[in-house]
Order: sequence, then structure tokens, then C-alpha cells
Amino acid sequence: MQKRLPQLAKLDLIPRRLPVRLSWILLVVLCAALAAQAQTDPLPSWNNGAAKTAILNFVRVTTDQNSPNYVPPDQRFATFDQDGTTWVEHPMYTEIVFSFERVRELAAQHPEWKTTEPFNSVIAGDKAAIEKFTTKDFVDIIVATHTGMTVEAFGKIARDWLATAKDPRWHRPYTDLIYQPMLEVMQYLRANGYRTYIVTGGGQGFVRPYAQEIYGIPPEQIIGSAIALKYTYDAAGKGVLMKPPKMLLNDNFSGKPEDIYLFIGRHPEAAFGNSTGDQQMLEYAQAGTGATLEMIVLHDDAQREYAYGPANGLPATEVGTFTQALYDEAKSKGWFVISMKNDWKRIFSWEK
Amino acid sequence: MQKRLPQLAKLDLIPRRLPVRLSWILLVVLCAALAAQAQTDPLPSWNNGAAKTAILNFVRVTTDQNSPNYVPPDQRFATFDQDGTTWVEHPMYTEIVFSFERVRELAAQHPEWKTTEPFNSVIAGDKAAIEKFTTKDFVDIIVATHTGMTVEAFGKIARDWLATAKDPRWHRPYTDLIYQPMLEVMQYLRANGYRTYIVTGGGQGFVRPYAQEIYGIPPEQIIGSAIALKYTYDAAGKGVLMKPPKMLLNDNFSGKPEDIYLFIGRHPEAAFGNSTGDQQMLEYAQAGTGATLEMIVLHDDAQREYAYGPANGLPATEVGTFTQALYDEAKSKGWFVISMKNDWKRIFSWEK
Repeated sequence: MQKRLPQLAKLDLIPRRLPVRLSWILLVVLCAALAAQAQTDPLPSWNNGAAKTAILNFVRVTTDQNSPNYVPPDQRFATFDQDGTTWVEHPMYTEIVFSFERVRELAAQHPEWKTTEPFNSVIAGDKAAIEKFTTKDFVDIIVATHTGMTVEAFGKIARDWLATAKDPRWHRPYTDLIYQPMLEVMQYLRANGYRTYIVTGGGQGFVRPYAQEIYGIPPEQIIGSAIALKYTYDAAGKGVLMKPPKMLLNDNFSGKPEDIYLFIGRHPEAAFGNSTGDQQMLEYAQAGTGATLEMIVLHDDAQREYAYGPANGLPATEVGTFTQALYDEAKSKGWFVISMKNDWKRIFSWEK
Repeated sequence: MQKRLPQLAKLDLIPRRLPVRLSWILLVVLCAALAAQAQTDPLPSWNNGAAKTAILNFVRVTTDQNSPNYVPPDQRFATFDQDGTTWVEHPMYTEIVFSFERVRELAAQHPEWKTTEPFNSVIAGDKAAIEKFTTKDFVDIIVATHTGMTVEAFGKIARDWLATAKDPRWHRPYTDLIYQPMLEVMQYLRANGYRTYIVTGGGQGFVRPYAQEIYGIPPEQIIGSAIALKYTYDAAGKGVLMKPPKMLLNDNFSGKPEDIYLFIGRHPEAAFGNSTGDQQMLEYAQAGTGATLEMIVLHDDAQREYAYGPANGLPATEVGTFTQALYDEAKSKGWFVISMKNDWKRIFSWEK
């Protein structure tokens, strides 16, 4: 209280000396408040261990003004991959599920799709063919389902779909499938002056409509793969932004550091990923100065979520691949591997 | 004071009723504070007039919670063109002056330039030829002088040049040629919760190195024309971002709303420009909901700065062109034309 009293005293609102009894009461209140603060775990869904300790340490050394690794608030940036890092990506990216459903919905308007790959396989629900889709096939599907409308119209389509679609395993909205421990990390970083960004291979235009609500991340902090934009005029002469059938940014692999620099203009201090598509982002974070934090989520919990990928001795999947080489790089460079099974006490907020 | 007293009283730090004498003292202090606030003009370099009033009104109606046009703080964005809007662009963009000097500096390493346009004209200082340069010529020069190095190396080259180069008219660093009235608008908007962005046809990589210092605008709020980026590894295996010889974004004309959406994800509430290259940005601001503000700087002060462009009945220049059509659009749409001659009391901070 010593530090605050002179200010209040200046206003002549309170006596310059507090009665002894009142001082004791204030002291007790203060001690109780400090004790409560010490007991509040900012990461309650994390088990104690190297990963949790690393996050707490990172925040401590970069926000303590007496630390040699102190980072001024305006330089505190943390970047998060989305699919497989902040929400479920298995067995298929949510945006691909959405795109496939869009293809089926739009099929009546595109009779030619019935005889054109990759659309006919999607319409027929041919799983074997879909498993063999190339990157170009996915891009064709994204372009066909995400373009030819205004940015607002696409945002509404995405929002409407997310409001009703349910995942087949938990029968919940896809936005319920975010990882509670990662949400806590985001909130903890923000409480300590960090700006949190999504840096996703998924579409910026798909993520923006829900990111504020589910992650607390605003549109200007969503970096992602992006369709080109085309400014034009509507029938009333009002300026509108259309989505032409053309990709502008591919925010995977080396696209992640490239787009981070385009948007932010510096290395992030902390980066979170789960696959080779995030490797360059983590390397780029580590190439910055001072203390940095790099973490990779290992999907090793078949019971509560999924176990997949070579780092678990399991086959690679078409989605994010956590290779043995990436695992070895992580270990050699001091990146932290987050074991969903061991490090996360709770995976979803609604888990019992 | 009535609103604050109950809170303090709750703490039992002060008597529940103030002595009459003390109440009078507080009232006097409060009135003095309010009077001081009223006297502090947030835009001291502006003359009274429609433009200044428009800025003050815009801030008032978008930040007053009781206003029907109230804008929540997280949605307050203002975008500023740079050349001709926040600093001098005449007779040549500063970045072009820089690029021409780079061409001359690099000429020894490029003997082929002596026989290649547009480089040979720049090396020879052939003004007549330079006046006929096409957009492609300028792009060739930008690419030749801005690429083939890391982003950090380019930033250092730009910073070093700006630290020593002086403009030929005022013999001052180019960064001294920012308009004090626009700086005041930026500061006033920021003081009212707005995030200020530069949205420039100039290079993002050229502007970022000085924007924090001269405008108070951080790297992540600089949108501009942009060279593509290429993530690769240096000799030590460290991840670095190179600038390959390829343009990614052309942040002029319709590129401005397109890039604003890419970076911010929404309409700006306020937009400031000075030429047809900014027209679409201003239209896009106005296409947003609620109260918006669109302003265009008219260069009509030959004595203190420059007078040029068709809106002054003068010939178009190769740089930003304020056409009669743009002037008419401004008038018909309620955009404010800022007359440098009449609206600005002072143009530069160092003016006597």
C-alpha cells in the first residue's frame, strides 16, 4: 500500500495516516490477494512437465524488465498453426469437409462436375479416390468452392455452415473441437502483452469468421492461405471485394515465415505447430534474437483424440505430418514436443 | 465526482460525506481540468474550417458511446496513403530518388546497364527520357534495386540512405518532409483508440524501417507494394527471408482496398489520400457502415510546398494525380478536400 497512499493523500480525500486497525485490515486483504494470485494456475488444463514449465518460463523471462531476455510489449508476437495445433484436423481438415459439402451442394449448378475430377469423386463420395487427391486436386476444390462471390458472401456461407455442421465422432460443432490447453496458452500470452496470430495453411477467409469468437483473435491477426481479391463495383455502384478463382498466398511450409514477415515484419517470439508444414515457422521464430519458444503438438492420444503420423510409428496421413525427421530436429534444436496424452489434462473444454 | 465517490467510500478509506469546504475545492479543480482540456487543440497546425471540423466531428461521433455511429475500439482503423498525403512526393517519390541513386551506385557491378533501358537513362541522368518512363520501367528499377538480398539487408540499405540523403529544395532529410498536420491527425486518432495504417503504393520494405520513428506506426501496420519473399537458409543453416526479383502486391488503385482487406479484414473507418491511386481506398472506406471519413489532400500551395495536378488547373504529373474527375467525385460523395494552402497553418514541424 505504501506506493499508492501518497497519490490518494494528494487528493486530500483521506487522512494522511491510517488508523492502526485499518492498516492491519488492509495488510490482511493484500496478503489474501497475493495468495490467491499465486494459486491461480494460468494453464489449468496442462499437467506439470517440461512443456508447461517451458511456457511459464518463456513468459517470465520475456516480460520481466530485469531479465536479459526482456521483450518490449510492442514486439511480443506469438503465432499458432491451426489444424492439428489449436483444433482437431483428423481424419480430415474441417475446411476440406466444408469444401466437399459445398461441392455436393453446388453440383446441381455444375453438371460438368459429374464427369470431371476431382469433383466427381467428391460427389460420389469415393473414399479411395479422395485418398489419392493431389495438392492440385485440393486447390481446384478450394477455388471452386471459395470464389466467385464477395468476401462478405463467402464469410456468411462459412459461418452458416459452421453453425449447423457437426463432426461425426463427437457430434458437436467443429468450433467445439478446439484444444482447451492451447486456448489457455493464447489467453495467458495475451494477458502478458503478447499478440496472438493464427498462421494457417487453411484459408484466411474461412478462419476469420469464427476466430474472434472461439480464440479471441481478431480478423487482422489471421494469416492464412489466401485467394486473390478483386475490387469492383456492385449494381448500385458501391465498391465491393470479389474472390476471383486465383490463389494469392499458400501459407504452408516456407509460406509461413514469408507471410509472417509480410504481415508482421519480424520474427515471432513464440511459434506453435504440429507438422512439417509448420517446421519453417518454428525455425524462423528460433532465428530471432533473445529467448524464443517453439512447440509442436504430437497426436499420441488415440483414446481422447487421435494418434497418427510417423513420429508415433504410424503411417503418414494426407493431413499434417509429424515425421521422424521433424521429431529429431525438434529434439536437437530445443523445441518442445507436446504430448497430448501426457501433457494435456483435458483436451476439450466440454470434457468431463 | 458523484459517480466516483461511492467506490472510494466502499473501501472505508474516506469519510462517507465530504466536508463542505473540501467539496468546493474539488469542484474548482474539476472545472479547471475541464477548461484545460477544452483549450488543448488536438490539431494545432490546422486552420479552422470544414476539414478540421470534419475530423473532430468524426472522432466525436465514432467514440461517444451514446452516439448512433459509435464504433467499438477493436474496429477503429484509419488508413493513410503516404506519398503526397503524409509526406512530400513532388517532384519525385522519395523511394524513386533512392532507387535511382542505388542504380548509379550499383552500375559498376552491372556493366550491361550502360546499354539497357531504363538503367542507362538513370545512369546518364537523362531527365527527358526519365519523364517518359512507363510503369514497367519503374518496376524494373524497383526490382533491380530492392531484391537479391535478405529483408534485413535491404532494411539497412534504406535506413542508411535516409540517414544521409537530403532533399534538394529544403536540404533536409526526407523524413523531415512529413506533414505536421497529418501527423497530428494520426496522433489524435490513436489517442482515441484508432489504429493508424500506412497504405502506400511505395514499398512496404522501404517504409517499415522509418515509419515507427517518424509516424509512430509499427511494422505490422504498414501495407504497401511488396516484393515476394523467399524463405531459405544462410551458410550457417539459419532460416532467412530473401527478396527474389518478383512483385507480390501492387498497392495502388484497386490494390489498396484489396490489400486492406488482406491485412485488416474489414473496411477502414477513415481513409486519407491525395490522388487517383487512393480513390478506391476512399470509396471502400465509405462503403463501410456508420459514419466514415474520407479526405484528399490538394497540393495547392506553391509557396510553402508545391502546386500541381489537374484539380489545380495544372498539368498531370507522373506521380499522384488529383484529376478533375476525382475532385468532382469527392464533392459529390461528401469527401473532404484538404487545401494545403487554406487548411494547414503549418506544413512542416520545423517551419517558423
